Order: sequence, then C-alpha cells, then structure tokens
Amino acid sequence: MTDTSTNMRLKLPVACFILEIILIILFGVFVEYDYDTSAKLFNGNTGNHGHGTGHATGHDAGTSQNTSHKSDRNDYENDFYYRYPSFQDVHVMIFIGFGFLMTFLQRYGFSSVGFNFLVAAFSLQWATLMQGFLHGLHDGKIAIGVESMINADFCTGSVLISFGAVLGKTSPLQLLIMAIFEVTLFSVNEYILLGLLGTRDAGGSMTIHTFGAYFGLMVTRILYRPNLNKSKHKNSSVYHSDMFAMIGTIYLWMFWPSFNSAITEHGDPQHRTAMNTYYSLAACTMSTYAMSALVAHDGKLDMVHIQNAALAGGVAAGTAGEMMLTPFGSMIVGFLAGIISVLGFKYLSPILEEKLKIQDTCGVHNLHGMPGILGAIVGAVTAVAIPKEVYGNGLEKVFPDVASGERDTSYQAGMQAVSLAVTLSFAIIGGVIVGFILKVPILGAPPDTACFEDSIYWEVPGEEHHHQELTAVRTEESDKLND
Amino acid sequence: MTDTSTNMRLKLPVACFILEIILIILFGVFVEYDYDTSAKLFNGNTGNHGHGTGHATGHDAGTSQNTSHKSDRNDYENDFYYRYPSFQDVHVMIFIGFGFLMTFLQRYGFSSVGFNFLVAAFSLQWATLMQGFLHGLHDGKIAIGVESMINADFCTGSVLISFGAVLGKTSPLQLLIMAIFEVTLFSVNEYILLGLLGTRDAGGSMTIHTFGAYFGLMVTRILYRPNLNKSKHKNSSVYHSDMFAMIGTIYLWMFWPSFNSAITEHGDPQHRTAMNTYYSLAACTMSTYAMSALVAHDGKLDMVHIQNAALAGGVAAGTAGEMMLTPFGSMIVGFLAGIISVLGFKYLSPILEEKLKIQDTCGVHNLHGMPGILGAIVGAVTAVAIPKEVYGNGLEKVFPDVASGERDTSYQAGMQAVSLAVTLSFAIIGGVIVGFILKVPILGAPPDTACFEDSIYWEVPGEEHHHQELTAVRTEESDKLND
Amino acid sequence: MTDTSTNMRLKLPVACFILEIILIILFGVFVEYDYDTSAKLFNGNTGNHGHGTGHATGHDAGTSQNTSHKSDRNDYENDFYYRYPSFQDVHVMIFIGFGFLMTFLQRYGFSSVGFNFLVAAFSLQWATLMQGFLHGLHDGKIAIGVESMINADFCTGSVLISFGAVLGKTSPLQLLIMAIFEVTLFSVNEYILLGLLGTRDAGGSMTIHTFGAYFGLMVTRILYRPNLNKSKHKNSSVYHSDMFAMIGTIYLWMFWPSFNSAITEHGDPQHRTAMNTYYSLAACTMSTYAMSALVAHDGKLDMVHIQNAALAGGVAAGTAGEMMLTPFGSMIVGFLAGIISVLGFKYLSPILEEKLKIQDTCGVHNLHGMPGILGAIVGAVTAVAIPKEVYGNGLEKVFPDVASGERDTSYQAGMQAVSLAVTLSFAIIGGVIVGFILKVPILGAPPDTACFEDSIYWEVPGEEHHHQELTAVRTEESDKLND
Repeated sequence: MTDTSTNMRLKLPVACFILEIILIILFGVFVEYDYDTSAKLFNGNTGNHGHGTGHATGHDAGTSQNTSHKSDRNDYENDFYYRYPSFQDVHVMIFIGFGFLMTFLQRYGFSSVGFNFLVAAFSLQWATLMQGFLHGLHDGKIAIGVESMINADFCTGSVLISFGAVLGKTSPLQLLIMAIFEVTLFSVNEYILLGLLGTRDAGGSMTIHTFGAYFGLMVTRILYRPNLNKSKHKNSSVYHSDMFAMIGTIYLWMFWPSFNSAITEHGDPQHRTAMNTYYSLAACTMSTYAMSALVAHDGKLDMVHIQNAALAGGVAAGTAGEMMLTPFGSMIVGFLAGIISVLGFKYLSPILEEKLKIQDTCGVHNLHGMPGILGAIVGAVTAVAIPKEVYGNGLEKVFPDVASGERDTSYQAGMQAVSLAVTLSFAIIGGVIVGFILKVPILGAPPDTACFEDSIYWEVPGEEHHHQELTAVRTEESDKLND
Repeated sequence: MTDTSTNMRLKLPVACFILEIILIILFGVFVEYDYDTSAKLFNGNTGNHGHGTGHATGHDAGTSQNTSHKSDRNDYENDFYYRYPSFQDVHVMIFIGFGFLMTFLQRYGFSSVGFNFLVAAFSLQWATLMQGFLHGLHDGKIAIGVESMINADFCTGSVLISFGAVLGKTSPLQLLIMAIFEVTLFSVNEYILLGLLGTRDAGGSMTIHTFGAYFGLMVTRILYRPNLNKSKHKNSSVYHSDMFAMIGTIYLWMFWPSFNSAITEHGDPQHRTAMNTYYSLAACTMSTYAMSALVAHDGKLDMVHIQNAALAGGVAAGTAGEMMLTPFGSMIVGFLAGIISVLGFKYLSPILEEKLKIQDTCGVHNLHGMPGILGAIVGAVTAVAIPKEVYGNGLEKVFPDVASGERDTSYQAGMQAVSLAVTLSFAIIGGVIVGFILKVPILGAPPDTACFEDSIYWEVPGEEHHHQELTAVRTEESDKLND
Repeated sequence: MTDTSTNMRLKLPVACFILEIILIILFGVFVEYDYDTSAKLFNGNTGNHGHGTGHATGHDAGTSQNTSHKSDRNDYENDFYYRYPSFQDVHVMIFIGFGFLMTFLQRYGFSSVGFNFLVAAFSLQWATLMQGFLHGLHDGKIAIGVESMINADFCTGSVLISFGAVLGKTSPLQLLIMAIFEVTLFSVNEYILLGLLGTRDAGGSMTIHTFGAYFGLMVTRILYRPNLNKSKHKNSSVYHSDMFAMIGTIYLWMFWPSFNSAITEHGDPQHRTAMNTYYSLAACTMSTYAMSALVAHDGKLDMVHIQNAALAGGVAAGTAGEMMLTPFGSMIVGFLAGIISVLGFKYLSPILEEKLKIQDTCGVHNLHGMPGILGAIVGAVTAVAIPKEVYGNGLEKVFPDVASGERDTSYQAGMQAVSLAVTLSFAIIGGVIVGFILKVPILGAPPDTACFEDSIYWEVPGEEHHHQELTAVRTEESDKLND
C-alpha cells in the first residue's frame, strides 16, 4: 500500500532535525528577551533605553505613549496582561481552529490536525526570525515578547490557509518546504505594507488572508493533478468528520474578534476592533444560512457553506475593524462577505477547477481570497470615507501618519489600495515559484490514487472491534422498533 | 424524503435576509460606540460627559466610582481588559457549550450545532437592540461595548435553553421566530427585575435560566406531538454523539465561573463570584455521580445525568454567587442542585411527558428550571441571612440600595422573591403565546416521523466509504483475537 | 455482563456523599475569603493587616511588594485580573486536556472523560484544604482566592497523571481513594520543596509531573495484572477515538505556556515563562515528528507519539521556564524532551511492562516521568549556570533567597537537585503504599476481561440505528465509483 517514494522514514526526520537545529542556532545568535520578558530590563533602574521589542514595525507605530518603559513601572503594566489573553485566543484559532476545520475529509483527520500541528510549530519559530530580521533588528538582536508571539502566530495562519488549498495532495515534507518560503515572503510583504507603505491591516485581510489564499491557490495550480478524480470518493466528508470540522469552525468564529484586535493599539482600538468583528460575524452567519438554503440542493443547508462562509465576516473586517467603521458598517460588510463566500463555493469553485485547473480542497478562495480582497477594499474606502474628525484625539492610534500630518486620508486610502496590489503580486508570483519547487519528485507527494488518505503517512487503526456484538444489539432493537 | 412544507429554500432565506436587513437599519439608526470603544470619546479631553454605556441598568448600578471616565485615563483602564476574557468564556459557552451539549442525539448533530449557531448569531444582534432600548437609551442612542456584548450573549443563552426543550421538533424558521419574541420578553423581564425592582441576579438564575427553561417548556407543551414516538428510535444517543456532547458539558462546566461573574462589579465581587461558582460546581459533580449510580439501571452511571446535572451547580449559584455566600455555602447549594437535577431526570421528566404532555428533549427543566428556582431562592435567603456588616465597605457593590439606606436586607430579599414570581409569569405566559404562534403551518415544522433527524434540513453525507475494506481488516483481526 | 463486585450502585454514592459532606464541613470550619475575594477586606479602610492568602508558601515568597494590600487600591488591581485568564487555561487543560487525551481507547471514552471529571472535581476541593493546611493556615483559617484555585488545579493535574498510568484498570471508587492519598502526599511534598527547601518549580516539573508519574507507575506496578492480555484488543485506539484524543493533546499543547506561568511572580517572570514554554513546545513538536517517522513502522507517523511526546517540551520547561533560560535554551530542552519521549514509547515502555511488570496505559513515564526528571535537572543546571547578574534587579522575583543573600546559586542548584530526589522518594514509596490499599477487593476493580471497557461502569448506547439505510446508500455510491 505504501509507495517507497512517499516513505517518510528518512526524509521527514532529516528535514525536521536540520530545520530545528538551524532554528536553534539562529535563535541562539539573534534572539533575546524584550523589555517585558527580561528580568534585568523590566526591573532595570535606568530610564534611558531604546524600545527594543521585535514586533512588526507598522504595528507599533504610535504606541510609544502607551508602552514607554519607565523604570518605576508596575508589574501590572507588563504587556503580558494586555496581550496574552488575545494571544491565547489566536493560538486556539491556529491549532484547533484551522486544524479541525480541515478534518471534514473522511479519511484525512490525522493529517489535517497533525500536519497543521507540525507546520504551525515550525512556522511560528521561523516567523519569529523572519519578522524579527525585517522589522525589529536592534543592535543585531531580535527582542521578543508576547506581541512577537502573536505576529508569529499570524504569519503561521497565512501558511495554514495555503495548506487548505493543497490539503490532501502534499506530503508533510512538501508542506514544511512550502512553509519555509511562504513565511519568508509573508514577512517581506508585511514589511513593505506596514513598514514602508504605512498601511493599516490589524487583522490581516491583506497580509494574512489575501496573501495566504492566493499563494496557496497558485501552489495548487502548479501542482495540478489531472487524474485527481481517482481519489474523488475520499474527497468528501462523512457525518462524524463534519462534526469535528464544526469544532474548528466555531472556534474560529468565536475568537475572530480576538484575532482582529490582537495587535491593534491598546485601549479603544482594541476594544472597538473586537466589537466590530463580533457584529460582522453575526451578520455574516445570517446571510450564509440564507444563501446556503437558497442555492443548495432541495433547499437544504450545506455543511460546507456553514463551516466556511460564516467565517468570511471575520476576514472581511480584518482591515477596517480597527477604524470607526461602526457596528452598522461592520454588519453590512459581514452580510456581503457571507453572500459572496457562499456564491463562490457554489458557482466559482467548480469553474476554477475546470477552467483554471485550480483544485482548491478547502475552498480557501471563498473563505480567505475573495473576503480578503473585500476586506482590503473596505479598509481603503473606510480610511477615506470616515472623516478624521470622527476619531478626535484617538486618530493617532489608528492613522498615525494622518494624525501627524504626514498624509491625508485619501493618500492613506491610496496606500491601502496599493497594498492590495502588492500583496496579490507577492502571493501569485511567490506561489507559482514555490509550486514549481514543490514538484521536485523526491519530496514524497502522494500518488493520485492515495490523495485525501491518512494511511499513506500515518499508522491508521481499524474501526471498532465491538462492531459484531453491537450489530447484534442493533438488530434486536431494530426489530423491536419495527414492531 | 423531503416534505415540501419543510422545504426551506425560500422561507429561510427570506426570513434571514429580512431580519438581518432590519437589524442593520436599526443598528444604523440607534447604535453608537460607547466611551470605551469610541476613538473620540475615549481620548476626549472634556471631563464633563454622561455615562452612556448601553448595558443593563441593574448591572451598572453602583459602578460609577469604578468606571468614571476621566479624560486623562490610561489605555490600560479600558474596560476591555477587565471584561473581555470573561466575555470570551461566555461566548464559548454559548456557541460550543450549548451547541455541543445538544449533539447527544444520534442524527441531529448538524442541527444541534448549526441551528444553535444561527439562532445565537441572530439573537445576539436583536438582544443588543432590545436591551439597549429598554436599559440604555441616551439621547435616542444605544451606546455599546464589551459589557453590552456580554449581556447580549446572556440573553442568547436564554433562547438556547428554550431551544433545548424543543430540540428536534422545530424548523430553523420556527426557532428564529421564537428568538424574536423570546429576546424581547427576556429584555422586558430583565428590565423589570434589574432596573425597576433592584434585584440582584448577576449570573441569571432567574433572568436567564428560570426564564429560558419555563418559556421553552411552555412552547414545547403547546407544540405537543402525541405521535412523537414515531421518531423515538432517533431520540437517543450513540457512543460518539455522547462524546461530542461531553465537549459541550465540560466547556459549560469550566467556564461557568466566568459566566456568573462576567457582569458583576469589578474587584472583589467578580473574583468572589467566580470562586463561589467553582466550588458549587465541584460539589455538584460529586452529588451528580452519586445520584446517577444510585438511581440508574444496575448501578451504572448514566451519561444523561453527567452531561446535564453536573452543571446544575452553576445555575443554582447564579444569583447568590456574588454575595458573601462563602465557598461552604456554595458547596451546599451545588450539592443540592446535583441531587435535585438527577432526581428530575429520573422521576420527574417521565411524569411531565406523560401527565403534562411536556416533551422536554434535553431535560431543561432539570438543568435550568429547578436549579434556576433553587438559585433564586438561595439568592433571596442569602440576601437576608448574611448580615450587611459582613460586606463592610464592599456592600454597595453588591447591594447598592441597601448600602444607600434605601432598603433593608429583608426588603431586598422580598424583591428577590417577587422577581422569581415575575419571571415565572413572563416565561409561562410568554411561552404559551409564542407556542401558538409557532403552530402556524407555513413555518415548516418536521413531521412526527422525521423529528430528531438532520436530513430534513441538511445535506447529510453518508458514512465512511472505506467501510468495506475495513470490515475485511476487522474480520482478520477478530479471527486472531478469537484464537 | 456485570459482575456484582463491580456494581457501583451503593459503593460510589456512599463514597461520594461521605467525601463531599466531609469536604463541606471542613470548608465550613476552615475556609474563608482572602483579601481579594472578601467584600469587607478588599474594601476595608485599615491598612494594617497581614497577608492572608492561602497559596503555597514557596510560590509567594517575594511577592509582598507586588500584592501589598493597600486600603486605597483600585478594583482593577484585584489579583483576579492578573491570574484568572491563566487559571481558565489551566482549568481547560485539567478537564478537556487530560480528559480527552485519555479518550484514545476505543471503548473507554465515557470513563476517560467521565472519571477524569469526577476525580478532578473531588481533588480540587481536597487540594484546597490540604494545601491550605500545609501552606497557608493563618489564625486557624485558610484564606482562598484565584491563586489557591490554580494551585488546587495543579495538584489535581498530578492525580490525573497517575490516572493515566492505571487507565482502564480501576474502578471510580479506587480512583477516588487514590486521589485522597495522592493529594495529601502531593501537598506534603510540595510543602517540603517550596516551603522548606526554597526550591523553584513554577510549572511543576518535579511537584506535578515527576511526582504524578512515578506515583502512578508504582500504583499500577502493585496492581499488576498478569492476564491483562485478555482485554488487549480493547487496549488500542480506533480512528475516531484518536481524533477525540487529539482535542486533548492540542489543548494541552496550546495552554501549557499558561500552565507553567500561572503562579510565577507577576510581571516579567510570568511573561518570560509563557514565552519560554511556547518555544520549548514548538521545538519539541519538531523532534517528535522526526523521531516518530524514524522509529515507527514503515516510516509512518504514530498517533501515540504525536498525542503525547509533542507535549514533553512543556513538562521539561516546568522548572527552568521562569528562569533566564532564553528561548534558545528552551528550544534545546524541548528538542531533547521530544526525542526522549518518543524513544521511551518505542523502546522503554515494552521493557517496563515485560521486565518490571509496569503496565502504563497512557505511557505517563514517557510524557511526564522522564521529561519531568529532565526538567528538574535543567532547572538545577540553569539555576547555577546563568549568572545572577543576568537577572539584574529582577533576581528576587525568581530566586528570592539568592537575592537576599541567604544562599548562592550553587546552593540553590543543590536544593533543586535534592528536591528531585525527595519527590521521587515520596512518589515511589507513596505509590507503593497506595497501590496496596487499592487492592482491597471491595473497591470494585474490573476483571481482566473487562478492562478498558466503558460498559462495566456506564450505560452505553448502541451505534447508529440508521446503519441499515446508510449501507444501502453507500453501496449505491460505491457502485457508481467503481464504474
């Protein structure tokens, strides 16, 4: 049953060991505690020091007044207490949310959760370094703390979105190699947007969702399998696998407000972002159910829509969520996102597969791609449509460059739009290149007949041994019921 | 297999679209950011403004000293940091807790999680408006933030309790209509209790649990199905569905301390409420296991009891949890709640069904109804039994009207008791009326033969396709084992 | 099918009722609110009072400057806001993490989650008292709050580790009795380490993991069943049970940073511990996947390794996590822990079973035993290897006795090493004694033929009744696919 080329006995250990040893060495050379995690710095008695946290440049613009490290500050002012609950919610989304969302396939649950786990564990380490190199190198060192942990998890999320596109058709080795390149490109794109262009994208409609989706779609396009229908009967759900997937869906839905608000400025922006996202998701759920019943066979709801499209409201609120979008605006955005997403699953995905040869296993184009673009557009429009007077003195927390007079709102909106184009370019070009890299035969991709199948990479146990006895019980009971 | 009357192709989309559009318009007209979510207000430099948060009146009595909005306040004093972790725990209870608790039915998992999701997404939006209109309209506007989000989730919880009573016997359209009315009545009852009567009910023994349970019981009474035994074989669990249900149970159990303490006053009341609930639940679990083994067949534990009765300690600590009940008192309350709840499942539920024609699918009378009443009584007794001197200067956070000298503790206790009667009246009368409304034939209720069955409203996949191959494997293994 | 000796109808209720009534009485006599949960004390206007919290002595050494209870302190300074999110993460690990991790057995899911639930609910109450008696009795009273709740959950974790060793082979009554003794011994050992020896062990590599593992291994050694192979076919997983177990694994993995940091000092130590653990776990996951593919059959990954060994990095960072270990050091520790743990599962567990007659159902020796010892050693080495200058003014939060000049770092390291020996002694001797106590026949242990089987203690439902209809559907579909 196992092809030797897919055998991971040596390939996977060698890759994991080499990668981890490289990571450890690089951490040893470059990484240090930031002011909030270091015993010496946090409790230091000199007030005269730079701000050395390693989080993304764009994210901490304007934070200086909040996190100025006074030597006499209280332990309770440690950023841990203001970021860590958000971090844990994001963490749950990455490992439970993405992991279980992908378990909808009937025979790919081990791989969905398990490769998600492996790829994420690698990516968050690599992202710490890449984001640190690009955004936060001070005196040759990357200083890290809870905010860099959130940013690393965010970057990991992008990789996992791409994983959704290629789900079932790649070896764990291919996924690790994809992660190496994707994390790197993600960090470059993020730096250009947040650091150079001064773009606002707290929840990552562009940096995370649009990037991850189109990157993954290009990879799966290059890895196109004309004979994938040989595994078609495994490329679907069963009753219990849909239930496991709903665990992922619901966790993503619940914690999306924490995701979008995790690295906004402290105070009202964080609070507002969470609330906007909450209402966007609620409205999105309503339109998702409506559209699912409308387009699905026989007026019945389709689990694929519920599991995915109901989340599009979180994606679409990723850029504008921190702005004064209002719950009213957020609900309109979520409402539209749900409609677009269900229509994508119903009508666009089949076309993408047939015409463009894009085999998008999880439909990431419908959950992350289109809603991500919608979110980017909403962000650009909101930036210019809401007058800056609406923000009052709070403007500098959301648009520091506008508050400082460096740019006006229409310029900000223009930069937001440019950022979408930059992101799409990086994602598409990067995805194509990485797709070709992943075609190297030695990487152990599964044959067409064994896609969407755990047993090629996992020891898979049988089903219940008590089946025989239970059948007897069941038959008895059925007899009774039929009386 | 599908009856045309249950076909949701047009009904559900029309309902969802109309409802959501109404919600969006009303949000546009009435809803605005509160002081902690608005960029302008939070960072404003005028100290002279009213307190415009939209949360329930009774809940913020006495908070003025805590949340006075000074113009120079720090970002770290934003209420987000003191309520949001509690909110997220409550959110998990609503969507995972209630959603998965109801998946115990063998063929109703999609509907349990999925309709829970839809109804909750609608209810939290509608509740924001209804609670806002009744409790927090200032200058014609409802100002919202994390506390109103918690209150909206609370109201949603009440609707989901009622859903438990009618589980398996209603269409999603019926559930949405039930939610419209129930949210409204909930808000009126809540306003009377907390706003007019000055009742304390932080964890909602009365407002949430008693109201939701008896409302749902009346609805299911009016929707009585004499021939429900045609679906009887589906109205039970299977092994895996019980495992999924335990996910719901455990999450409800773990986060109940957060639920009861989510909208108490800050400081010691929030801390104390969480701790009281923690010990109440622990004691309740002990008595639940004891009673289950005692009354169940052959001394074996019954999953129905464990999944439900072990939670009764949280319900019963909902009113008195914020008072100086002590862990000792909390444990006694939880201990009794577990006993009452198991006895209810074993002896009372069959009587309710046979004699009173109340078909209570999830046994909400045992988990929310009786323990809710117990909690209300314990609250009234505790209010008068613990001398106010025990609270010292902290009295005004728990009993502001007693602290201000407006009333004495026995008057407070009287109001607590009156509140129970008011709540029961609202729930019973409201439930009856709404039950009749839901009997309108066009709403698509399932026929008696298709209750507790997902496939009437959902595309349901088959079971594992690999069954054949596995059977072969299994047989081989069984042979070996039988040697 | 049920042996009368295993019938729990009277035994379990009697045990639960008596234990709970004793608990309630002892709580009534000894337990009171601490300064942060009491309405009177928290809002008191006298500044002159002692520090009466009931948490473990060693854990609060040096905290006085942080938690000094000034009469004018703000509600926002209540410890609730700085510990409760950590507490909830720990709580999830105890009830969902441990509970679902053990559901990997095909027919023992009810017992895994259910007995975990019962034993934990009992243990946390008993631990509150035992830890209070030993660590925090003031004027004959135990003052409790969120920190004591975390400590109680920690102690409970230790009992659940031992449960993993005997999983499937004990009655709920035996488990309760084991918990009575284990909680007591845990508290004594913890007091010796943290209170008398001044050892640092914030995440409990020694107090929780090493103690729980070797205690459980000794119990299962004494309860050795030579004919356990009669139940061998049930002592394995099936596809869905492995999926449920992954829920437990992922939650433990995600929240381990919260676990290790839950009762460190506030400020930088808590922040640093969480971050060190995060990187330790990520590195551990990489080495776990590498080793699993390397040693498992045919290069395929083994779910047993992924479910367990990937967590060893959290265990191994339990002692040194709060020290200035650096992410670099943490990753090395995690990397080694994963390797050791997989090797243990593959090569050591069979030897333990065959040669030493230790039937370790969950392999707790590999997840908690060896990694716990590794963590203790790493802690001792780190204590002396990192110069105290690296801590600057933050030294007193981590090594208060070194900061005060009472001891030097090498003495501290020596105490750390002595603590490991003390812990192992307590665990091994205690486990042997308790093992013999559990052999009392009346306790209702399952017969060899009915180990790893829910139906001996639980009402177990059948499997899906719709099986017949679905088989028909499936056959049709299979036919189509085979065309």
